[in-house]
This record gives sequence, C-alpha cells and structure tokens, in this order.
Amino acid sequence: MSGYFITFEGGEGAGKTSILQAVESNLKQLGYQVVATREPGGIEIAEKIREIILDTSHTTMDSRTEALLYAAARRQHLVEKVLPSIKQNKIVLCDRFIDSSLAYQGFARGIGMENVRTINEFAIEGYYPDLTLFFDVPPKTGLQRITDNQDREQNRLDLEKLHFHEQVYQAYHMLLKKYPQRIHEINANQQINLVEKAAIQNIIDFLQNK
Amino acid sequence: MSGYFITFEGGEGAGKTSILQAVESNLKQLGYQVVATREPGGIEIAEKIREIILDTSHTTMDSRTEALLYAAARRQHLVEKVLPSIKQNKIVLCDRFIDSSLAYQGFARGIGMENVRTINEFAIEGYYPDLTLFFDVPPKTGLQRITDNQDREQNRLDLEKLHFHEQVYQAYHMLLKKYPQRIHEINANQQINLVEKAAIQNIIDFLQNK
Repeated sequence: MSGYFITFEGGEGAGKTSILQAVESNLKQLGYQVVATREPGGIEIAEKIREIILDTSHTTMDSRTEALLYAAARRQHLVEKVLPSIKQNKIVLCDRFIDSSLAYQGFARGIGMENVRTINEFAIEGYYPDLTLFFDVPPKTGLQRITDNQDREQNRLDLEKLHFHEQVYQAYHMLLKKYPQRIHEINANQQINLVEKAAIQNIIDFLQNK
Repeated sequence: MSGYFITFEGGEGAGKTSILQAVESNLKQLGYQVVATREPGGIEIAEKIREIILDTSHTTMDSRTEALLYAAARRQHLVEKVLPSIKQNKIVLCDRFIDSSLAYQGFARGIGMENVRTINEFAIEGYYPDLTLFFDVPPKTGLQRITDNQDREQNRLDLEKLHFHEQVYQAYHMLLKKYPQRIHEINANQQINLVEKAAIQNIIDFLQNK
C-alpha cells in the first residue's frame, strides 16, 4: 500500500466539502489511513498568505499578485502537509488544488490558464494529484443552492457572479478534456447522498486498480 | 522626455543604497523628475508579503514559497508604484529588482535561474528595466565592508556566507553576459565618491542617448 493524493474540484454549491467528509469517514471505515485537508490547511505560513489574499481592505490587489500568493500558499501546504502524509502512506483528500487556480484565476479572471499553470508548476514541482474528482453541477444550480441556504433573493451581484461561475464551469470542462486520465467527472446534479456514493465508488475503484 | 525604469543591482557591501541617493539628488539637480524606491516600497500589500518572508519564526519556509512571495511583492510594487511613476514621465530608480531574485534565489539558493525567471516574468509581464547598473565588488571585499561597519570579527557564519555570496557574484556575471545591452557594469571596488560619479555618468549617457 502506498500514499495517494486525491483532490476535489468544482464550482460553488457543488457540495465538495460535505462530500469530502463523507468520503473521509467511509475510507477510514474501510481501514485506509486518510488525511482530509484544504489549502491553507492550518500551515502557519500559508494561513498568513491567505490572510493577505482575503483582507477586504486590499482593494488594490492585482490579480497576478493574487495568483502568485495562491501559488505560494499552495507550495507551503504541499511541502509541509501533503507530501509528508503521502510519504507516510496516507491517502490525502484535498479540497481544491491547482485546477482551481487554472479555472478561477487563469480562465475566469482572464490571466490565462497557461500563464497560471506556469507559476503553479513551479509551486508543485510535478506533484500533480493522482486522482481528481470534478463535481459537475450547472453554475445556476450551484449558486441557487448557496442562495437557498442563505435565504436571500437573487440580486444584480448574483447575476454578475453567474457569468463568472459559468466561465469557471467552462474552464473545468476544458481541464477534463486535457486530463482525461487524472480528472474524473462526478454528476453532482443529484441528491447529495447519491453524489457521495458515486465519489466513494470512484475512489475505491481507483485504489483497487493500483 | 519620457519615463525610464533604472535598477541597481549587486551583492552585499556594494554601496548601492548610498549611491542611489547620490544619483537621485544629482539627477534632480539636473532637472529630472526622479522617484527613488526599493521593493516593497511602502506598498501595503507588498510590505505585508515582506513581513512573512522576513519573519524569523518561519523556519519551515520553503525556498520556492519564498521565491513566489518575492515575485508577488515585486508585482504589486511594480503595478502600484513603478508603472504609474513611469507613466508620469518620471525616472524610477529602484534598489534591486528581478536580477536579485535570479542571482540570490535562482542561482545561490539552487532553485535554478530559469525556474525563477519564469515566475518573475509572470510577475513583471515584460517590464524589464530600461537600464540596470551592476555594482561590481568582490564578495570578500563587500562582506568586509559590512563587517568593518559592524565592528565584529569574522566567524564561521561569515565564511559560510562568503561561499553563498560568491555564488551570487558568479550569477550576476552570468546575467551581465546574458543582457549586455541592459546591464552595465560599474566598478564598485574603489572609493565611494568615484563609484557614485561613474554611476551618474552612466545614467546621464543613457538618458542623453534616448
């Protein structure tokens, strides 16, 4: 048995976070050693970088600065948490990784996927995930789920967001085409327990074929 | 008349900081509009990034994380301070820029100059300096100047440092060969007033040939 690096990707409202928890407890019940994480993953340096990114007073933040900061936080989280866990033969489940930067910053923010890939490949040094699950839900549905949760009506901002998230969605489908081996599509446009079941089955198939 | 971007480069003890001040006041006397700066240059976002880099408690900082953080701070300083000043037809004198990262992190820290160039080219988006002055002083002499200043004897750490700074010095000479048009060598192994004079003359020649 050896360690694996599995990432969860998708737009807003795809249900990644709760699915990841379900997968974690299911794999643990099957006897696997699992580490569930997400950037910045409690790594002090990465947390501090994230604070700079998220500080709402930083209105002059350039999008390339932001992309470099995400790559820096990713690097530190990879080196301090992901790689040591894999070396201990654990299965690392990570909520978002390089594909999020390619989709959100590279494509939706317009920096260019290849440009963002370049700095992220510097950051990850070849450590692409062994398996990536893309949770496919139409952006309108995903955003509706979030809106329903927050009990508020859709406004102009949500409509602007919709366009942005449609760009993200389009980018993920481009990535699916580019990495058909690594990225597996999971239909997330169904009841959450069915999505969880599909995710768990996909990962178990992957592990058993290794 | 238009704006220009001029950077000052070199190892420790080359005298860059005081030379830059002398150049600044000299060019101002000649009627040029001058902005003297150094990364992070008082830009709030870049200052905060620098704090993370310099925090001595961050003992687990990976060298690639550090390189990405330097590139992020550089980007923000470029966008918020350097480019707006150039657009106002000012001459920007900047203490250290991309060549420092190539020499210190790319070569001396062993990440690879081409790797570090890649992320920095993402950061600077083609805005290489119009002119770069490299202040050439042998590392041993440069370090001795600093040591003399601090009134202390050379120790094991200084010797380790010497090897590191010899690597930096070697890298700068590689850059001189690579960019003979952009980077001009100034002999800094002489009295400071002579170095200042040479730097001022070099910049005036450059400006008058534009």
